Amino acid sequence: MRDFTASHEALSLNTATVRKQWSLDRIIDECAKRNIRAISPWRDQVASVGLKETAQRLRETGIVLSGYCRGGFYTAPDKQGLLAALDDNRRAIDEAKTLDAPCLVLVVGALPGALIGAASYKDLGRARQEVADGIAASLEYARNVGMPLAIEPLHPMQAAERACINTLEHALDICDALDPARTGMLGVALDLYHVWWDPKLEQQIQRAGRDRLLAYHVCDWLTPTRDLLNDRGMMGDGVIELKKCRSWVEAAGYSGFAEVEIFSEQWWNRPGEMVLDTCIERHTTVV
Amino acid sequence: MRDFTASHEALSLNTATVRKQWSLDRIIDECAKRNIRAISPWRDQVASVGLKETAQRLRETGIVLSGYCRGGFYTAPDKQGLLAALDDNRRAIDEAKTLDAPCLVLVVGALPGALIGAASYKDLGRARQEVADGIAASLEYARNVGMPLAIEPLHPMQAAERACINTLEHALDICDALDPARTGMLGVALDLYHVWWDPKLEQQIQRAGRDRLLAYHVCDWLTPTRDLLNDRGMMGDGVIELKKCRSWVEAAGYSGFAEVEIFSEQWWNRPGEMVLDTCIERHTTVV
Repeated sequence: MRDFTASHEALSLNTATVRKQWSLDRIIDECAKRNIRAISPWRDQVASVGLKETAQRLRETGIVLSGYCRGGFYTAPDKQGLLAALDDNRRAIDEAKTLDAPCLVLVVGALPGALIGAASYKDLGRARQEVADGIAASLEYARNVGMPLAIEPLHPMQAAERACINTLEHALDICDALDPARTGMLGVALDLYHVWWDPKLEQQIQRAGRDRLLAYHVCDWLTPTRDLLNDRGMMGDGVIELKKCRSWVEAAGYSGFAEVEIFSEQWWNRPGEMVLDTCIERHTTVV
Repeated sequence: MRDFTASHEALSLNTATVRKQWSLDRIIDECAKRNIRAISPWRDQVASVGLKETAQRLRETGIVLSGYCRGGFYTAPDKQGLLAALDDNRRAIDEAKTLDAPCLVLVVGALPGALIGAASYKDLGRARQEVADGIAASLEYARNVGMPLAIEPLHPMQAAERACINTLEHALDICDALDPARTGMLGVALDLYHVWWDPKLEQQIQRAGRDRLLAYHVCDWLTPTRDLLNDRGMMGDGVIELKKCRSWVEAAGYSGFAEVEIFSEQWWNRPGEMVLDTCIERHTTVV
């Protein structure tokens, strides 16, 4: 396993971590100042600054992407909605290409409308089929453009609203079905917050292997957790066995960034400088 | 699939559903009044009324148990704690026997101390081993007494604090390891709230079969869900495909009660009479 104690060169910052403190251009500057070598930005943050401006700022600072957030949300109550989702994913793939991202992260979607408390249907099997069909369509486009897609299994507590792929095993089943040749164009974004509890985690990480492990995200699971979405913990403040999980991922061949992604009202209420400095300190001690 | 529209004879009430409104003796009376034929009481509720008094009251009203809540919580930071848990589970088994329960439901426990925000260790593999060892020890005692044990897989969002068995597959793996002969003495309590999201649910219900399906619980998953523990929905108010899941369970041979278990600050704040009447109405329409 790689030694993270001497430097934070493997640290990437998911820019949602400080999205309430700073705009993306400021985040890039603050990362550059601290020798944070990579980020994973969100589409709305990029749109605010401008796509070309963001690409330019990245080139100037030498900061690379560890992923681009996000595509997905494939489900819809009708055909028009399904087609609109495919269009939107093509745009996301193009943006990811412009920013030279190593992959587009897919939060695949779940019961359409559930996110606003009004699911237009409850058939989880249908949602899963729409997601598989959507990924298949995006993959065709992504292959032409040369942009790998990374399915992110989300915690089962998000199964209704955000993603109906909730285990690494399920994500890999889809990868195997759509990309049996393991071309490197379809894989997973493994966020420990979503999968740490899974009794099959180590086994499925081995199954994934280097070809399928396109991104690796860390934060921590707090006890108690007070909110299903925005109460993630800073690494070391919760119960996830971060080093053990990283040893599994690296044993499977992963050698990329360990990306910090913390959605937390608590951390959003602290100065951005303090958040980044804490991320660096924890990355070199507990990740 | 059984027709529930004509009567609520398959309805059992998990007594936690109205625990803030009424004591157990009152709950039994209110159930008797409404021809609710079965309950699943909690140990603390029974202790408040008295074990013998509860048994007596059940005989008088003809109400039976669909399960007894609960044994488990096997993990501990030290040997003394592990032994104390086994003692406590023996007492729970004895109580279940006194009340003529068909099974003792096991909420198996997770990282010890996490429930009060102070996990004494983070090794989930260790917790799972302690749980398997604890169930094995309880099973020996339970066989002698003649009290089946029902492992309840809890939602992964409870993996740190309450139960480190979080999928039906994992629960059945343990059943197969400890009771390969499928004697009927070890099985699962399937609560849809915990497992509805699982892409392998139908497959694993088939695997479980009649021998392993010892209890079946219903409520609903709300969008949004505002609390990880006490924001369950009344059947029909959420997104769980209740009838589809019941068809799977019955296809596997289950013919027992569909037990209503709703932990909800919202429903605890309503009159108990209204809660029970609503349970009956929903049981005959959407369960």
